[in-house]
Amino acid sequence: MLTPVTISSNMVGSEFDSLMMQRCLQLARRALGRTSPNPLVGAVVCRGSEIVGEGFHPRAGEPHAEVFALRAAGEKARGATIYVSLEPCNHYGRTPPCSEGLIAAGVSKVVVGMVDPNPLVAGGGIARLRAAGIEVLVGVEEAACRQINEGFIHRILHKRPLGILKYAMTLDGKIATSSGHSAWITNPDARSQVHQLRAACDAVIVGGNTVRQDNPYLTSHQQEGHNPLRVVMSRSLNLPENARLWDVAEAPTLVLTEVGSSPDFQKMLLNKGVEVVEFPLLTPDHVMARLYERGFCSVLWECGGTLAASAIAQNAVQKILAFIAPKIIGGSHAPTPVGDLGFTSMTEALPLERVHWRVVGSDCLVEGYFPQKSQ
Amino acid sequence: MLTPVTISSNMVGSEFDSLMMQRCLQLARRALGRTSPNPLVGAVVCRGSEIVGEGFHPRAGEPHAEVFALRAAGEKARGATIYVSLEPCNHYGRTPPCSEGLIAAGVSKVVVGMVDPNPLVAGGGIARLRAAGIEVLVGVEEAACRQINEGFIHRILHKRPLGILKYAMTLDGKIATSSGHSAWITNPDARSQVHQLRAACDAVIVGGNTVRQDNPYLTSHQQEGHNPLRVVMSRSLNLPENARLWDVAEAPTLVLTEVGSSPDFQKMLLNKGVEVVEFPLLTPDHVMARLYERGFCSVLWECGGTLAASAIAQNAVQKILAFIAPKIIGGSHAPTPVGDLGFTSMTEALPLERVHWRVVGSDCLVEGYFPQKSQ
Repeated sequence: MLTPVTISSNMVGSEFDSLMMQRCLQLARRALGRTSPNPLVGAVVCRGSEIVGEGFHPRAGEPHAEVFALRAAGEKARGATIYVSLEPCNHYGRTPPCSEGLIAAGVSKVVVGMVDPNPLVAGGGIARLRAAGIEVLVGVEEAACRQINEGFIHRILHKRPLGILKYAMTLDGKIATSSGHSAWITNPDARSQVHQLRAACDAVIVGGNTVRQDNPYLTSHQQEGHNPLRVVMSRSLNLPENARLWDVAEAPTLVLTEVGSSPDFQKMLLNKGVEVVEFPLLTPDHVMARLYERGFCSVLWECGGTLAASAIAQNAVQKILAFIAPKIIGGSHAPTPVGDLGFTSMTEALPLERVHWRVVGSDCLVEGYFPQKSQ
Repeated sequence: MLTPVTISSNMVGSEFDSLMMQRCLQLARRALGRTSPNPLVGAVVCRGSEIVGEGFHPRAGEPHAEVFALRAAGEKARGATIYVSLEPCNHYGRTPPCSEGLIAAGVSKVVVGMVDPNPLVAGGGIARLRAAGIEVLVGVEEAACRQINEGFIHRILHKRPLGILKYAMTLDGKIATSSGHSAWITNPDARSQVHQLRAACDAVIVGGNTVRQDNPYLTSHQQEGHNPLRVVMSRSLNLPENARLWDVAEAPTLVLTEVGSSPDFQKMLLNKGVEVVEFPLLTPDHVMARLYERGFCSVLWECGGTLAASAIAQNAVQKILAFIAPKIIGGSHAPTPVGDLGFTSMTEALPLERVHWRVVGSDCLVEGYFPQKSQ
């Protein structure tokens, strides 16, 4: 609920502007997980306080959000205000530039959530609109607009998908018992959050240990939800012949290994419809580079501690999502979320920034980011 | 701040009654850590809305809270209302029964926070007052009155001090690096909370490993704060000759060991003013039994995972206080808060009840209780 007390002093636009931008984000989310390498974008056309057109970008290759919103508004777009969560594009890509479309439609004002994250093109669309005499307001609900596209923004700035390490642990820091059993640590509310998270990501990565120990589905378990590409990293291909991940009827699976590893097992996987890619050297960074080339914006690491440590060390993880369940399992040698990082002093610990603690059912969900390394 | 919306439907007494009872608890807390084996109790005498006398129980052997409050009120106590956080006693102990004192002072109404936790005497004081024609209201701010004396209540009901396991871990579940370094995991706000916690407890227990690794002070680091008895459990007495805990100028130290262990080391400790007690078998339960006999209400386990697991297994821990710092240290073999409990399936994990997640500075403090085992 919006109330005056929650509005910060540097708020851009009116309360109505904020509401319309939130509606844009709501529309944008309908395409969650389906737009990469493009961003999630929503647009709303208003005449006065009446919404006369809405749209969102459904997937790469399809028109942008503004196009759908203008189409829906028809002639009512002339003289109207259009809200759009991301700066309208100003270049000929797979579709003509939206800035020209807005000018042609005759809108009188454009309210923008955030400028294009690519520093080379940022502000170009806005400048084109202003040059055509259209009023432009920039930065309404900017934080929320950035949040929904954090993966896309990271992709543009760093040429890698955003890496999110997700794990669930007991209050005494274990992700499984000493014998490797882990079902279930968290409550159904938390597990449902994980399914939503998967639906928003382009890929989920696990290592061979997770396949052998947990035999996971790694799907979003949602009626119409997007399923991420399920990625298994395994140098040895010492994997079970039967695993849920080899059933690609519901979601695709990609197995990454090293050149020449187990040709027979690779053939078996290919026969089942699993994609296999060989790397000269299988490392988290090489994997993220490959997934970037594939057009991915966000990748969820749902692996055990050894692979997680390797991913963190190679800067393949930018964000942590940790579920903590208020239970004690014990175990001096029970596995923990992150393996060796080579630190001997507690002062070397990697601190997280922008940390949020949130109660989800009986559990706690902790979200935080590693400090951004300079490029 | 008290506002009508926060008042639950089963609230006992008026808003003014609640405020006065909160004042009783505020007074009671002035003796934090100093009253065992007695409870913390505060009392307030009111005429209308005017406070005419206040008091609290300062330590065992001293008068009860009601006596101080009545003394302060003097003749104004006649016809007044007295608020007291715990049911007035009705027996001759080290002091005459408070019920008789209240009757003699001529108060017209007694408002009680909670009845005596001892089922054998509960309600006796209240019945005596009512028999004398005094109006008695029971259960005002009862939850808060129980909370402040949870150690005392546990002591009365279970004939053991309340055991609280406190630890600080990183977001990846470690209480130290692989090499044992642990200073500091939490931020200064959290550490200050630990000092307050120590000031409220009768004893703090660590094992030999903690002495060897951390060389802790285990004091409350407060100008006028109470310091708990610092207890070291060590079968072998394989401990450093110089340790901060052997300096008893600021706070006393008790070393518990097994019969016949290192007589020379024991002599050295005794010479420094450290108390030493030998057990035939040194176990957490035997230690808690001994600390019960010493009159203790609450004991803080600040030990490592091995001793913590043993204390949990022997029901010497009822409450968990876990600080979680949003940082990642890594370490496949880094120590975690709780060692082996013998569980192989995640379904065997011990769930916590009455769980609270609270942000303290940048860290999170999780509080929870093991389900009470029946006696």
